[in-house]
Amino acid sequence: MKLRDILVLLGAQCDGDENTQIQRVAKIEEAVAGDISFVSNKKYVKFLSETNASAVIVSKDVTRSSHMNKNTALVQVDDPYVSFLKVLVAFHPPKDPLPPGIHPTAIIPPSASIGTEVRIGAYVVLGNGCVVGSNARLCHGVVLGDEVTVGANTLLYPNVTIREGCRLGDRVIIHSGTTIGSDGFGFAPKGDGSYEKIPQVGIVVIEDDVEIGANCTVDRATMGETRIKKGTKLDNLIQVAHNVVIGENTVIAAQAGISGSTTIGSGAMIGGQVGITGHLEISDNIKMGAQSGIHRSIREPGGTYFGSPALPHREAMKVHGVIVQLPELRATVRELETKVQSLLQEIEALKKK
Amino acid sequence: MKLRDILVLLGAQCDGDENTQIQRVAKIEEAVAGDISFVSNKKYVKFLSETNASAVIVSKDVTRSSHMNKNTALVQVDDPYVSFLKVLVAFHPPKDPLPPGIHPTAIIPPSASIGTEVRIGAYVVLGNGCVVGSNARLCHGVVLGDEVTVGANTLLYPNVTIREGCRLGDRVIIHSGTTIGSDGFGFAPKGDGSYEKIPQVGIVVIEDDVEIGANCTVDRATMGETRIKKGTKLDNLIQVAHNVVIGENTVIAAQAGISGSTTIGSGAMIGGQVGITGHLEISDNIKMGAQSGIHRSIREPGGTYFGSPALPHREAMKVHGVIVQLPELRATVRELETKVQSLLQEIEALKKK
Amino acid sequence: MKLRDILVLLGAQCDGDENTQIQRVAKIEEAVAGDISFVSNKKYVKFLSETNASAVIVSKDVTRSSHMNKNTALVQVDDPYVSFLKVLVAFHPPKDPLPPGIHPTAIIPPSASIGTEVRIGAYVVLGNGCVVGSNARLCHGVVLGDEVTVGANTLLYPNVTIREGCRLGDRVIIHSGTTIGSDGFGFAPKGDGSYEKIPQVGIVVIEDDVEIGANCTVDRATMGETRIKKGTKLDNLIQVAHNVVIGENTVIAAQAGISGSTTIGSGAMIGGQVGITGHLEISDNIKMGAQSGIHRSIREPGGTYFGSPALPHREAMKVHGVIVQLPELRATVRELETKVQSLLQEIEALKKK
Repeated sequence: MKLRDILVLLGAQCDGDENTQIQRVAKIEEAVAGDISFVSNKKYVKFLSETNASAVIVSKDVTRSSHMNKNTALVQVDDPYVSFLKVLVAFHPPKDPLPPGIHPTAIIPPSASIGTEVRIGAYVVLGNGCVVGSNARLCHGVVLGDEVTVGANTLLYPNVTIREGCRLGDRVIIHSGTTIGSDGFGFAPKGDGSYEKIPQVGIVVIEDDVEIGANCTVDRATMGETRIKKGTKLDNLIQVAHNVVIGENTVIAAQAGISGSTTIGSGAMIGGQVGITGHLEISDNIKMGAQSGIHRSIREPGGTYFGSPALPHREAMKVHGVIVQLPELRATVRELETKVQSLLQEIEALKKK
Repeated sequence: MKLRDILVLLGAQCDGDENTQIQRVAKIEEAVAGDISFVSNKKYVKFLSETNASAVIVSKDVTRSSHMNKNTALVQVDDPYVSFLKVLVAFHPPKDPLPPGIHPTAIIPPSASIGTEVRIGAYVVLGNGCVVGSNARLCHGVVLGDEVTVGANTLLYPNVTIREGCRLGDRVIIHSGTTIGSDGFGFAPKGDGSYEKIPQVGIVVIEDDVEIGANCTVDRATMGETRIKKGTKLDNLIQVAHNVVIGENTVIAAQAGISGSTTIGSGAMIGGQVGITGHLEISDNIKMGAQSGIHRSIREPGGTYFGSPALPHREAMKVHGVIVQLPELRATVRELETKVQSLLQEIEALKKK
Repeated sequence: MKLRDILVLLGAQCDGDENTQIQRVAKIEEAVAGDISFVSNKKYVKFLSETNASAVIVSKDVTRSSHMNKNTALVQVDDPYVSFLKVLVAFHPPKDPLPPGIHPTAIIPPSASIGTEVRIGAYVVLGNGCVVGSNARLCHGVVLGDEVTVGANTLLYPNVTIREGCRLGDRVIIHSGTTIGSDGFGFAPKGDGSYEKIPQVGIVVIEDDVEIGANCTVDRATMGETRIKKGTKLDNLIQVAHNVVIGENTVIAAQAGISGSTTIGSGAMIGGQVGITGHLEISDNIKMGAQSGIHRSIREPGGTYFGSPALPHREAMKVHGVIVQLPELRATVRELETKVQSLLQEIEALKKK
């Protein structure tokens, strides 16, 4: 691709040779001649004077310095990251993970309803009454239980399992090894110390534009629904228990876990390995630091929490600031004890005088 | 189903019209006309005056108030939750996840022994010498290694892997994506900094009535057995390392992990994301709060532990009570320092007088 | 096997009857007549006077005591554990998880290149252009995306998924349910609160002699590579995010997670459930205690860290020593407050005199 083509794509101009051939996109610290890169974060501006990239996308306030390689063209845009993503997609147009059509080994009962342009891989198994929307892709080894609904343009990567009755919206992406609709963890204690399984008769609903990472588990509801709302994104190895509801456009990092019947608001940002106990209500736009343990409902929207048990971020930072100095604090207290003891003696002596 | 039929099922009576048609079971906060619901927890009694459910199962000390909808019948029983479960099962009789018979694509070597009424799904693969008990169900995509034993009435959901030689008891349930019998994590350091794999020649034994959630991992023993005893229930994404032994009727919440050679007693309740280090002995009936880190053996049965490193619960609560007030405590200590300093000066002045 | 054969294997001698038949290897606390066992750790020497094992491998400084069973032969060697592993392998020669050849149900496109002596199980699916090295084994249900490279002698257990373009070295072992090459967790926030997926066009490279446990997830790079270097060993349920680089001969325990673009050095030992945030650089030979949370780069090699947020081990131990005594510390401070208050009053009284 010529640099000129990229400029047209971005509606941008540059200070270099528009005929330069661009072969590859690369990170600024790795880019060489023939590459196009970008600088979005100020921390990376320093690489501009070192790089031999053929072109770098920068924001409009970044200008050429005398240290820069003269063969490196600067492409100034409003938002370098967004522009860079456009170039990235131009160089790597999304490839379909499956060839067109339905693999002859896929098992599709007559009661299933398959939309137009659907691609289904090898050794996929659909239960009775499944509905698969147009342009959906079910990769090799995917298993759908009875009466599962998969929306249009939804993509299930290899070895995903969707249990009976669960419903996936449009443009959903689910990565390999994830299980949707496994039984909720519900057992009633019996008198003899053993447990009786509580039937888990609900389903899971995954709304439009949700993405769920690899090897996650989303349990079906005991009754009713476990629901992940529109636009929410889950990383890998995340546990979502029965009857949980996660709001719209929430992002959850890897290995976090949400216990049964908890409701998470919209716009949350939940760090890796966070644990949230059951039956809580978490308001909108809440941020939780990695490894936090959330033990109480959060009614006030917009806060940031940290620690286990979690505190409001500012408070947690103050507490942590003291924690790391605890040995000194104890030493101070011991010194005070000694001083006070000797003061007591001195006072006694003075009183006797 | 008529309300009368439900009353017969429960051996109960009610204060409403026994001819009412009941269509659905629902949670009290969601129930509408035509639904039957229940109130077991006192926290939910408040919903009785708001619900339009056609019937609500309650305990015998709950009586009709003037605020209640006159069309809502109260069904009084000894244990509303147990009664409700009976109704739930009546409305949702357990459905078999597989049709009868063995799917023609299942690969079953002549050396395997398959009991009566066994159901095997599509693309299941059995190793040599496997034994599958009567009425067991192996769902689509399940893989059993050589010489695996599966007990009667045991249910393996899609895409479960059981490695060679492992033994599952009767009425075991294993959810999708779980791996039983993967190699224990054992490596011997060599002089050059690299590691040599220690052969993992043991097996995993899962006793009767155990349930294991989705995407769990239970490693085979280095030698001997990793064992999960009768009636124990594991949630999703749990790690059980090589040579671990878990006692009977223990429940473990999602994302907990137990390191190698640790023994857990019976009747334990282990919270989500708990980590237990290796080579420990944990007594019976121990409770561990979510995210706890257990670093020492627990010899005394029946205790509750919390925190990382974990302390007895009462102690942990006291410690945590101080932790959240640490900034104030430090301020107090600083104030004391100032006061003591000025006391010292005053004493010096008095002594000079 | 006769004891004599074992002595030849180890180049060792013993003080017992070399004609004894050895049937089994066992742990010292479980060994009975007919078994060979070992004592490597001093803690287990006590079992020598209790065991009825036919032979025990010990180090050269361990000698027969009068309490020992006379039928138990002592086999003295330089390194009892290494010698024991040799015996273990002699009794349990590694069994191939697959029979020779390629199962007729394996789907291998003409564009794939398969080395000599490769074994491929049932219902395996290879994408276009895959390259599989000689003597590799792909167990039942494995899925390789397009253009995946698998090195010689590499072993993929059942139901492993390797996404398109990823490259595995020689002698790699990957356990069941693991996903390599799932999309990195990258989304750009849009003005309306929703997120746009950032294309993940990089790959994963797994170098020679790496072992990855069951149900792990290793995400592909946004651009470039996620890389796990030679000889590194991962336990189960571990998350490795996009663009992470893990050095050589590093061992990581179960349920640990490494966030995006972090670099881990060689020779690290990372405990279970450790979380490491993104964009960090961790030096060589670092040890991290279980459940630690690493929030900062570690430039100095060789340290040990613990806690969340993590501190150098010695500091963390000191801090933790105070934490468990916080209730007493607070009581001391309160007592000091009372004493200082009364001192102030006494001084005032003295001054008035």
